Amino acid sequence: MSSNEIDTLIELMAKLPGLGPRSARRAVLHLIRKRALLLTPLADAMQEVAVTARECLNCGNVGTTDICEICASEKRANGELCVVEDVSDLWAMERAGVFKGRYHVLGGTLSALDSIGPEDLSIPKLIDRITSENITEVILALNATVDGQTTAHYIADQLEDRVRLTSLAQGVPVGGELDYLDEGTISAALSARRAL
Amino acid sequence: MSSNEIDTLIELMAKLPGLGPRSARRAVLHLIRKRALLLTPLADAMQEVAVTARECLNCGNVGTTDICEICASEKRANGELCVVEDVSDLWAMERAGVFKGRYHVLGGTLSALDSIGPEDLSIPKLIDRITSENITEVILALNATVDGQTTAHYIADQLEDRVRLTSLAQGVPVGGELDYLDEGTISAALSARRAL
Repeated sequence: MSSNEIDTLIELMAKLPGLGPRSARRAVLHLIRKRALLLTPLADAMQEVAVTARECLNCGNVGTTDICEICASEKRANGELCVVEDVSDLWAMERAGVFKGRYHVLGGTLSALDSIGPEDLSIPKLIDRITSENITEVILALNATVDGQTTAHYIADQLEDRVRLTSLAQGVPVGGELDYLDEGTISAALSARRAL
Repeated sequence: MSSNEIDTLIELMAKLPGLGPRSARRAVLHLIRKRALLLTPLADAMQEVAVTARECLNCGNVGTTDICEICASEKRANGELCVVEDVSDLWAMERAGVFKGRYHVLGGTLSALDSIGPEDLSIPKLIDRITSENITEVILALNATVDGQTTAHYIADQLEDRVRLTSLAQGVPVGGELDYLDEGTISAALSARRAL
């Protein structure tokens, strides 16, 4: 149907999350049509990232230096640590652009089913950082899922009395319509209601 | 939020059809995690395709040789030509694996709105091939859209009396349920009904 090199590329592209065989074929034809504008720059960018990407030794963020820009920045507030499950969550927090402290990426959540315990995540590292970086507040920004909340409770137990512990507020999303919200969110928003 | 190299890769990935900024970020994090297994092979495969991919000078298929495997194959039936809009349509026909002749890729459809005329497509080339390759049957496998059918009629006018002209049958798709089909398809299937 086409040559080996193109088939190989289609097979590899189909392994990306969100792409299947059909969209991989479509993407590859698009790439071949835009060879100079997209295919070559993309190949170069991938090669570059394959060589330079690394995990921050301190927080687990992904970047191109041993210590990431956020950990290395002197503009970041000392003493505040935001704990997230994954690098994508850290990036989402950074896009909001309101948190000025530093991060700690757990690398997942505790899960009895998948036998993921505290030592499989970077929880011991987190406990070390509390002392070594004189952390006074830990914000648990874990996903509002069962596993995320279990992990938050476990970490809260470990850090109790040592730091101020907070978590993200639960409630109606900005722009959200009540009619489209689930009962759990509405009930959380009601019980956390605020004076106007 | 992350380093320049990674941002560049995310921006380029977001230009692929079917991927937006969010899925591009997800794909790039996935790639970084599977560096040896996916990122490096993918970069290599892209580099390879960027160098080797070319359009078949005869039919317009995409491959790695000046004359594609299908045009060059001696096992293909001479005299039969299947006309398709796009390379992806040619690949779809090949996956079905039933057509044993050769192809001709138009590279689009006639469109008065976008001022695409016959000379913008490879229609003159198609007419040349009818003579030079002694074609006796042309199968118009164009999409069942208004533009596709307009193009099919135009080509049919040009080739009338010179070759046998056929088009793909219209009707109920295999596995299809009447309840889910549009009226046009049902009416086409009814008027083309066959004796059992």
